[in-house]
Amino acid sequence: MIVVLTGGTGGAKFVDGLQRVVPPEDLTIIVNTGDDHEWWGLYVSPDIDSITYVLAGVLSSERGWGVRGDTFHCLETMKQLGEPAWFSVGDRDLAVHLLRSKLLAEGITPSEATRIIANRLGLRSRILPMTNQRVETRIETSKGEISFEEYFVQCRHQDPVIAVRFAGADEAKPAPGVIEAIESAKAVLIAPSNPITSIGPILAIPGIHDALRESSAPVVAVSPIIGKAAISGPAAALMQAQGFESSIAGVAAAYQDFLDVLIVDDSDSESAKALKSERMDACSTNILMRTPEDKTRIARTTLRAIAPRIVEEFQEAG
Amino acid sequence: MIVVLTGGTGGAKFVDGLQRVVPPEDLTIIVNTGDDHEWWGLYVSPDIDSITYVLAGVLSSERGWGVRGDTFHCLETMKQLGEPAWFSVGDRDLAVHLLRSKLLAEGITPSEATRIIANRLGLRSRILPMTNQRVETRIETSKGEISFEEYFVQCRHQDPVIAVRFAGADEAKPAPGVIEAIESAKAVLIAPSNPITSIGPILAIPGIHDALRESSAPVVAVSPIIGKAAISGPAAALMQAQGFESSIAGVAAAYQDFLDVLIVDDSDSESAKALKSERMDACSTNILMRTPEDKTRIARTTLRAIAPRIVEEFQEAG
Repeated sequence: MIVVLTGGTGGAKFVDGLQRVVPPEDLTIIVNTGDDHEWWGLYVSPDIDSITYVLAGVLSSERGWGVRGDTFHCLETMKQLGEPAWFSVGDRDLAVHLLRSKLLAEGITPSEATRIIANRLGLRSRILPMTNQRVETRIETSKGEISFEEYFVQCRHQDPVIAVRFAGADEAKPAPGVIEAIESAKAVLIAPSNPITSIGPILAIPGIHDALRESSAPVVAVSPIIGKAAISGPAAALMQAQGFESSIAGVAAAYQDFLDVLIVDDSDSESAKALKSERMDACSTNILMRTPEDKTRIARTTLRAIAPRIVEEFQEAG
Repeated sequence: MIVVLTGGTGGAKFVDGLQRVVPPEDLTIIVNTGDDHEWWGLYVSPDIDSITYVLAGVLSSERGWGVRGDTFHCLETMKQLGEPAWFSVGDRDLAVHLLRSKLLAEGITPSEATRIIANRLGLRSRILPMTNQRVETRIETSKGEISFEEYFVQCRHQDPVIAVRFAGADEAKPAPGVIEAIESAKAVLIAPSNPITSIGPILAIPGIHDALRESSAPVVAVSPIIGKAAISGPAAALMQAQGFESSIAGVAAAYQDFLDVLIVDDSDSESAKALKSERMDACSTNILMRTPEDKTRIARTTLRAIAPRIVEEFQEAG
């Protein structure tokens, strides 16, 4: 079993590559739920949705979120009705929010709701929310503390960040299957997601960090940083706010307790040499995912870096 | 103040005519909520919506319900997700259900939610749900008891009806403003709605029937029946199930305690003569509402039948 830790648009792209290489039933994806929020009275789980959509083949690759070719007529009407409209919900996307909200209102857990939605879409990979408890990524900015979506979408991550915290994480438990998946994994992959607000919340759930450290499976991460800048989004500013350098060294530091291999961009190959130690290897490739071919190549490179035979095994089995 | 009792598609058409004749601020519309139901976890109030949409100028005249030119992408996705899809909710329509559900979940009453939505759409007429309590029109069919929407939409009113009841009506109270509107009305108009399942639930709320009987305002109804058949929908079968003849005599009987004038179709003018009594007048016109001109004409005829000067007053004021 290949286990992936993911969140955000980079994570969805990475999973898109993986599903082209790994048989779906061999893929377990542990997903950040720190961005979950209430919207128009519905419960929205953006990172779970992105992974669900990418595995169902309906993720909008143009936008990186939501459903391909979706319309926004409900959103337009909500705006006309004077309701907030800064968080873009498409009409098809809305169906998933409605269904999840209905299931949760019936007392079904987030992991069970995720499984039901994935099943109905015919997915064969396993998508696990990091926890069934409510954990909220809160961003302390110079103007006050706001939710991740308020910071990322409403304020377009323009506000200077002072700190990040994961409200509720201390009391949360890993969702059923999360620890077991890490413990029994053949390999654990960390997507090129934001280390602070996509992977950070997952690591903040008591037990997950330890399971990664203690797992016998190799752990490989793909850097979301090239040079000093994030490939996309506010990772650089958030890393700095949390005391990490915005560089591949910062990424390695964020994952130092359990990381075996860091995949970096070719342009960082010199800095990568300095990172290599007895405990951690680094290897470089072109990590920009622009085309389906890029995604497949990066998935293969990542798997080969820790389990050289695994890609061939999958190919032979497929 | 002109007060209208209404429900269903015939009611919305009638109100469309009235708004072309009566200044909006002089119109109070008391609406059936017996068809309200939960759908995809949202609270849906079909008759309130139709009146809201017709007054906002966005009702689909083609369908008679929902928003003109709406799309059904969320519905299609819900169907793909294995959720029920027999009740058609458009993407723009959905915004109103979301907003109402959110307001109700916040503890706001149905009448206040109705007012908020109407205000946001810039409406100047007053829309009053018949009650703020949950009253459900239940249809006893040969296959068991079902909700009105299950009977009307899901089963396309094909099941033989044994009886109709309004669950919760005995304990319900008229919504704020309903009794006051009837008491102070210049005229009370009963739309050509289904007497059993559109007007029946309104009359079943304790206090409303008495207020109509005691009001000094003339009460006029437009027949939803021509000959022995309903202009549309299952009114004939439902009237028979409740012991009324499916004819203008049946309509007159349903409203006999308070009706002053019944407007019937020209083709029923002979039967209308037999209906006339000291207590009730009947007058005939072409009551089919096919065009905006039909609707305006019927609104004028209805008002003139009870208050001959009123239409001219409105025209002079406008």
